[in-house]
Amino acid sequence: MKQILAEILTIGDEILYGQITDTNSQWISSELDQLGIKVVRKTTVGDTEEAILGAFAEAEARADMVLITGGLGPTNDDLTMPMLAQYFDSEIIMNESVLTHVKHFFESRGRTFTELNKRQALVPKVAEVLHNELGTAPGTWYERNGKVFVSMPGVPHEMKNLMKTLVLPKLASFFQTPVIYHKLIKTVGIGESFLADKIKDWEESLPEHISLAYLPSVGQVKLRLTAIGDNREHLKKDVQELIDELMPLAGSYIYGYDNTTLEEAVGQLLKAKGKTIALAESCSGGYVQHKITTIAGSSEYFQGGVVPYHNNHKVNLLGVKPATLEVHGAVSEACVKEMAEGARKLFNADIGASSSGIAGPGGGSEEKPVGTVWIAFADGKETITKKLQLTQNRLLNIELTQISVLNLVRKSLSR
Amino acid sequence: MKQILAEILTIGDEILYGQITDTNSQWISSELDQLGIKVVRKTTVGDTEEAILGAFAEAEARADMVLITGGLGPTNDDLTMPMLAQYFDSEIIMNESVLTHVKHFFESRGRTFTELNKRQALVPKVAEVLHNELGTAPGTWYERNGKVFVSMPGVPHEMKNLMKTLVLPKLASFFQTPVIYHKLIKTVGIGESFLADKIKDWEESLPEHISLAYLPSVGQVKLRLTAIGDNREHLKKDVQELIDELMPLAGSYIYGYDNTTLEEAVGQLLKAKGKTIALAESCSGGYVQHKITTIAGSSEYFQGGVVPYHNNHKVNLLGVKPATLEVHGAVSEACVKEMAEGARKLFNADIGASSSGIAGPGGGSEEKPVGTVWIAFADGKETITKKLQLTQNRLLNIELTQISVLNLVRKSLSR
Repeated sequence: MKQILAEILTIGDEILYGQITDTNSQWISSELDQLGIKVVRKTTVGDTEEAILGAFAEAEARADMVLITGGLGPTNDDLTMPMLAQYFDSEIIMNESVLTHVKHFFESRGRTFTELNKRQALVPKVAEVLHNELGTAPGTWYERNGKVFVSMPGVPHEMKNLMKTLVLPKLASFFQTPVIYHKLIKTVGIGESFLADKIKDWEESLPEHISLAYLPSVGQVKLRLTAIGDNREHLKKDVQELIDELMPLAGSYIYGYDNTTLEEAVGQLLKAKGKTIALAESCSGGYVQHKITTIAGSSEYFQGGVVPYHNNHKVNLLGVKPATLEVHGAVSEACVKEMAEGARKLFNADIGASSSGIAGPGGGSEEKPVGTVWIAFADGKETITKKLQLTQNRLLNIELTQISVLNLVRKSLSR
Repeated sequence: MKQILAEILTIGDEILYGQITDTNSQWISSELDQLGIKVVRKTTVGDTEEAILGAFAEAEARADMVLITGGLGPTNDDLTMPMLAQYFDSEIIMNESVLTHVKHFFESRGRTFTELNKRQALVPKVAEVLHNELGTAPGTWYERNGKVFVSMPGVPHEMKNLMKTLVLPKLASFFQTPVIYHKLIKTVGIGESFLADKIKDWEESLPEHISLAYLPSVGQVKLRLTAIGDNREHLKKDVQELIDELMPLAGSYIYGYDNTTLEEAVGQLLKAKGKTIALAESCSGGYVQHKITTIAGSSEYFQGGVVPYHNNHKVNLLGVKPATLEVHGAVSEACVKEMAEGARKLFNADIGASSSGIAGPGGGSEEKPVGTVWIAFADGKETITKKLQLTQNRLLNIELTQISVLNLVRKSLSR
């Protein structure tokens, strides 16, 4: 099968001068990659006629499709529409359906619809309009000699919505790309190379039409399965069978799929088990509680928590024994055990979890260097502890402690 | 003065396919912009000879300098060095000083120095080597017909260090760019347009050689003053005089300069005043405490805090009166007042601060819609409260509440 090639063209001085980050082109690349379309070049040019027309011609010469973002505002700096009209030798017309949409868009938000706003409805006559339900600048689609140009707004959520609902399906149909089905498998608590080692035989036995990618981030590794074929339901079934085979090998590290976050997965587990939780965070400084409370509805299972940064609060609030601090210190198994049990009682929760460690850069010793962290889980029946040996970097240590605490709760609840 | 033009070229399949985000080119753009050099195009190409050589020639035709990142690994996929050698018609030689550095780099980290690693020391003979102290791939510098090519590693911290210490000074000297001095003025608690209105006269009276940019982000606005001239000390003095004039107009919103963060500024204030702080966070869910504890040394002034997510903990732990909750509800001035005072006492701190609000998406009512938040500051002498009317977005409300609490502490301490 002939490889289908794409170029991505970003238009705007503000990106060229480093005033804003272009996150669009990575997202577009990754979506095209998942359709089996190969991006051969990304280009950013400024708001000048010469640069834009030059980039159009260069891209058309190299690729089967050119995906353009930006330069669609209503002011005179915004040149994408007039340049597309010129490039495709077309006059510009007022599109009535876009005009109605833009007018409604402004009026429904209580904003005045001005003459300037009207210009958002001016599109090249030769273009097919792609309705932008989330904004005022329409997408447009052009075909010539078997090649496709697509122009989209630069505002990320508008562009993404247009791509997902209209552009990607149209590209798949125009270029007759195969059906592609993806599944993200999200793991925590195991490094990339250890995971790869555990699932080596499974990975090697993957059928021809299904491929695997490792996507590591701080403290987590995502596995992406990509299946290519001609029937989505069959692919979905094939992938599910592979996940079923993966479970005995790595199931204990898997906390969710696709867009699920770790804090969401822990929340769902707590809800499913009908349990509430409380936190006592020393070195993670409230970050676990912050993560838990980013989830809408977390008040159903999150009772509350405490950050006893100074040791006397560990004693007064959580009932950590002064002798524990004296003999073992605050960064110790005994201390996090008493903290987790104390949090449980203080907040009248089913579960207590805790952290205490040396985030750095100061405070380390030979016996307990920077990066030494203890965490604990208590449910009233037993208390599980874990020692972490992390990094020299304070922010990374806080992040990794937060992930480890949530993962300890997840694993303990899943027993 | 002739405008000096630059192009940025990123080399690597992993960026083209959307596997990693290219943050380098934005950073480079912004640094060049601050030197008065204009970026006219950014291009990303994959790891193929044809694409790389084509991109070199195109960029050279358009710009005075071409800044290249990526493609410098020791494997056969990495083509930047051989393509530069070919483009500049030069043989490749083993550079002894790079070789020594790479060898030491590996050995000092206890890693084996292999034949493959040796290849990192292969550079075009025509190139000037730019020593990369943070990594193994060297930077290289090429001059031809008054134009400059610079090749740098793609690893962001290596590239940034090379740029700051070697590339930017060399570019400034080669192209005789003027001396440019920047100062970031960081404000919080006022929107961009209100700030612009307050400082309009000051802005209009800026001298010819000093320009102002507004850089807004969530809850904050940075002002960047850029002074152009031929003497750094004079520029510094000019900028300081302008800041002195700005203070009576907007000083109460300014919390710091350059890289200072709000949580750092609050920490410095607390240290300077010899005060300790404790938090009681309901709707911000521990995020203020997280921000405070990201700062190394925060244990000097941060006593601890509590997240009393359920109302009974507001009563039991912080001494909020049941009658307050009954009559006014948890999201009320009376409640955050008692929470801040309670946190102060519970943690034996000089200062208590608190938040309670409806982060959303659920929990809103006609009287108290989603986004209604109360915050408070208590220092034992008085308690200051503030009502915020924020957004429909949960994460944004948490972020804005965190910033507002820190700013309330800052303002109250600065009185």
